[in-house]
Amino acid sequence: MATVCISGTLADKLHACADAGFDGVEIFEPDLLAAPESPEEIAALAGRLGLALDLYQPMRDVEGVDEPAFAAVLRRAEAKFRLMNRLGIDLVLCCSNVATATIDDDAVSAAQLRRLGDLARDYGIRIAFEALAWGRFVDDYRRAWRIVELADHPAVGVCLDSFHILSRGHDTSAIADIPSEKIFFVQLADAPRLSMDVLSWSRHHRLFPGEGDFDLVDFTARIVSTGYTGPWSLEVFNDTFRQTDARRTARHARRSLRWLEDAVSRVLPDAVGRDDLAMLPDSAAPSGVDFVEIKAEDTSAVEELLGQLGFTSRGRHRTKPVTLWTAGNARLVLNEQHARGWEPRLAAVGLEVDDAEAVDLRMDELHVPRAYRRTYASEERLDGAVAPDGTEVYWAQAADEGEPAWVAEFEHGEPERASAVVGVDHVSLSQPWQAIEEATLFYTAGFALRVDSSTEVPGPQGLVASRVLGAPGGGVRLPLNVAPPILAGERAGAALPQHVAFACSDVRALARSARERGFVPLAMPRNYYDDLAARFEMTDAAVDELRELHLGYDRDHAGEYLHFYTRTIGEVFLEFVERVDDYAGYGAGTAPVRLSAQGRR
Amino acid sequence: MATVCISGTLADKLHACADAGFDGVEIFEPDLLAAPESPEEIAALAGRLGLALDLYQPMRDVEGVDEPAFAAVLRRAEAKFRLMNRLGIDLVLCCSNVATATIDDDAVSAAQLRRLGDLARDYGIRIAFEALAWGRFVDDYRRAWRIVELADHPAVGVCLDSFHILSRGHDTSAIADIPSEKIFFVQLADAPRLSMDVLSWSRHHRLFPGEGDFDLVDFTARIVSTGYTGPWSLEVFNDTFRQTDARRTARHARRSLRWLEDAVSRVLPDAVGRDDLAMLPDSAAPSGVDFVEIKAEDTSAVEELLGQLGFTSRGRHRTKPVTLWTAGNARLVLNEQHARGWEPRLAAVGLEVDDAEAVDLRMDELHVPRAYRRTYASEERLDGAVAPDGTEVYWAQAADEGEPAWVAEFEHGEPERASAVVGVDHVSLSQPWQAIEEATLFYTAGFALRVDSSTEVPGPQGLVASRVLGAPGGGVRLPLNVAPPILAGERAGAALPQHVAFACSDVRALARSARERGFVPLAMPRNYYDDLAARFEMTDAAVDELRELHLGYDRDHAGEYLHFYTRTIGEVFLEFVERVDDYAGYGAGTAPVRLSAQGRR
Repeated sequence: MATVCISGTLADKLHACADAGFDGVEIFEPDLLAAPESPEEIAALAGRLGLALDLYQPMRDVEGVDEPAFAAVLRRAEAKFRLMNRLGIDLVLCCSNVATATIDDDAVSAAQLRRLGDLARDYGIRIAFEALAWGRFVDDYRRAWRIVELADHPAVGVCLDSFHILSRGHDTSAIADIPSEKIFFVQLADAPRLSMDVLSWSRHHRLFPGEGDFDLVDFTARIVSTGYTGPWSLEVFNDTFRQTDARRTARHARRSLRWLEDAVSRVLPDAVGRDDLAMLPDSAAPSGVDFVEIKAEDTSAVEELLGQLGFTSRGRHRTKPVTLWTAGNARLVLNEQHARGWEPRLAAVGLEVDDAEAVDLRMDELHVPRAYRRTYASEERLDGAVAPDGTEVYWAQAADEGEPAWVAEFEHGEPERASAVVGVDHVSLSQPWQAIEEATLFYTAGFALRVDSSTEVPGPQGLVASRVLGAPGGGVRLPLNVAPPILAGERAGAALPQHVAFACSDVRALARSARERGFVPLAMPRNYYDDLAARFEMTDAAVDELRELHLGYDRDHAGEYLHFYTRTIGEVFLEFVERVDDYAGYGAGTAPVRLSAQGRR
Repeated sequence: MATVCISGTLADKLHACADAGFDGVEIFEPDLLAAPESPEEIAALAGRLGLALDLYQPMRDVEGVDEPAFAAVLRRAEAKFRLMNRLGIDLVLCCSNVATATIDDDAVSAAQLRRLGDLARDYGIRIAFEALAWGRFVDDYRRAWRIVELADHPAVGVCLDSFHILSRGHDTSAIADIPSEKIFFVQLADAPRLSMDVLSWSRHHRLFPGEGDFDLVDFTARIVSTGYTGPWSLEVFNDTFRQTDARRTARHARRSLRWLEDAVSRVLPDAVGRDDLAMLPDSAAPSGVDFVEIKAEDTSAVEELLGQLGFTSRGRHRTKPVTLWTAGNARLVLNEQHARGWEPRLAAVGLEVDDAEAVDLRMDELHVPRAYRRTYASEERLDGAVAPDGTEVYWAQAADEGEPAWVAEFEHGEPERASAVVGVDHVSLSQPWQAIEEATLFYTAGFALRVDSSTEVPGPQGLVASRVLGAPGGGVRLPLNVAPPILAGERAGAALPQHVAFACSDVRALARSARERGFVPLAMPRNYYDDLAARFEMTDAAVDELRELHLGYDRDHAGEYLHFYTRTIGEVFLEFVERVDDYAGYGAGTAPVRLSAQGRR
């Protein structure tokens, strides 16, 4: 781990890295300069924590300069080499010249690296030369390697950084040309594919492996295939990660490396390097939603809604103040335990998986914090983890047929009624803005979900970013919605409501029958329906029906989407949806209207 | 004002625009769709508020399509024209085709606009055709004008949008070729010069005029010069403005238009269009800092520091619990009035101006909220405004010679001591992240300060963005520092401390004498000094002296910067700086070390 990735003082960062299970760090120079501890104290602290100090970085603008400038480089380098000796670090990162290069000549750069190598060798130090994506002359790892080859010095090798190579789209096949013993260091960072200047992209928007758009698996596999056995280090400049809790971010970072190790071990041919690489236990993506839990001191307002919407009360749990409501394959658990003072909120989601034990082992390997629910003898065990937003996510073996066994723990219920609800369509989870990347990795690495789509929805209080995590086949859909950052002066924790959307066979019929039982849907404005008529060329009768039932409507090339919302109770609301044909979206055109209607509530 | 610029429901937005003094708005269609009010109610509300409904927008993808697609365009358009009749809006924005264009032919687009114009005329509506910067075929205002010219229809003209034209760097001289009566509408937006894809840039990063890097003054002057007399509308898509308080943002927006009107009236030749344009009263940038005020229930911890640092206590105000401390031309006011429970904070800054009355009139014209301080007969009047971060900024006529007259209101002070402090070097004001643009406009439009430089400083809790507002000549320097957004769960309002930096003739001597009087500076780590030695090739003796005195040091091509910090008291700390030769920075290399040391406090 590069210390620049996380927040705090250098000592904080070392503690956080050790706590997360890293075995080494790269020391980012500004972190050392600001530290009150001496280099010897830092070395001793790292030693006690079991952290190797693998790299000192960066040393800038060392080659491609004229002779007087190079004399100054050597003086500066010698001071740093002495410092590195005090730290006990034997490898320094020299990045290609950005600011002072005046000579665009491989031979000159090579000769200067060779002379720097001579000096380094006197201090027992080696130099890893890296091509920055925005280097003045050297901006391509292949050229950096040519220069190192020309330098031909035992203390001079290359550092390969995935960001600098993949951001520029450079062909990675030439990695195979570099002898493994000349790859002195490897830095890993993912990033979203953004079209912006590469320096800003690099300094602010890097992500941990698996969270962006780069093919880190291929990149890493290519380096493993050279026979490289050195450190794999995360160097992730990200404005958010620099700010969040260091221990939490370090664990998040370590999890991304574990995910990468697994993914690489799955693509590499058997012959090379697999001894060091361990797969995670195999597990397919979840096939469905086992249950959704809403927790509150008093859940009766939710119960009233569920009754109006045709759910069956299946009774109360044998040992807990918990009730179960079902409709079709949708199971909603209302929990009043340990919820004093809570307004209704979406507290837990249960997922149906093909191999619960494998998921359990994956979560252990990924060091995901676990959720705990007390279960008594003769009750089904609940295995769960705590997602970054605090939602508890449980998993259970999918039932071969019929209802899951735990349903039998609920007593004194009513006989199941027929319902237009067939199951859970999606569960929308609101994320604090600083947790979205961690949440994405939690669901992709832990549950083999994948990012299906991303969008932005304008609401009356700002733009809401939405990223859908899904399972192939559509059995599980989890839109993660990110509220705008909190404004100073606002209540901390003010956030979007969460919601559960239920899939229906006939949403119009459900809306009608619910209304007969006293249900009042979230009111959609008439202007919305006038626009539907213009956009979709619908008949007046069709539009009138939608308007009377307060149904939202969308259509694309694949099909149609009809849906309505309940009012928000506490921090949660419900949605009822009907997908016609292969419509795969979420009615994004209706979401701004819904946000506005909720804002008026 | 385009309703998309600000937060809230459509009715909220109309109220906010009217409150800010706008005389018209453009209705952004999604705002109408989400509104519970009927079009007639919206029209009536706007009428009551004195707001013209100048434009309905956007109608997308209307030209460059095949005949079946165009038939659908006409059907859709007719529904919108009917809606516009209900709203009483007679102008619609049609932007160049992005999604459905298949025919890249000016004649086809022109013929289709002509047919659309025929239909529009039947409803008493006109069409303003705009080239989006990312239009499929039409992405240049010059081409949009050629198409409109070809269409040759009285109901078809162009809309000119500064963002779409200036973001692409298109030559604006061709604006003069467009007859003013064919310019149906003008949209104004500024933006920072970013190298990113133009769609994201446009949708997220626009700014109000005067806050970005575009030459809005030249752009606007060119349009005024055509004889255009239609609306000037702000269309500013900005993630922050969409989220902040609508009334505040609308006033901020209106202020930017007033600034632009002034700036345009100053560059236009006398002959054209100046009747409509009013200059603001002339006022040069402030020449110096009159005073800085720190406010707290108990200011004695600050007083102790000031005594150690050689300030003279000039006594207590005749009528208020306020004391004055001076050193050279630096005047620090400590205010214990109306400060119950307050830790020391930087509450006010006074600026010396050449024409206090002109500033007063400017502030009135800009509708800046005013600060009020009670003054009694025979006391100097204080004129002030409240900056967006809550700091009160006062202005007073610069004294011809000697101390300002208000100093005489302080009694029972000590005789002035000689001091190494000569004046105020800079005042650093921490800004909530959502207020930085508004603050920039406040200082540039209100006080004729300018943005001197911008940088980012890594701190242990994240990156701190810093933007320096300054007066030519350096008499006033106000670095505005933006703390990272608040994390959910943190105390709202947690922010960076503010600080006052005093200019010194000999900062080493001051540090030594202060130490003799018991002063303890903020401790700088030894590692920092080891690095200074390596970076600047200083002698051991020079580095030892800096380290002993806990002085920060920077050097650039223009000169040197030496400085030290006090500890933070409440929310404020002090800095003492010495600039050697023409050094113009703020020791940015030392700031991360300082932030880290403050974090350890």
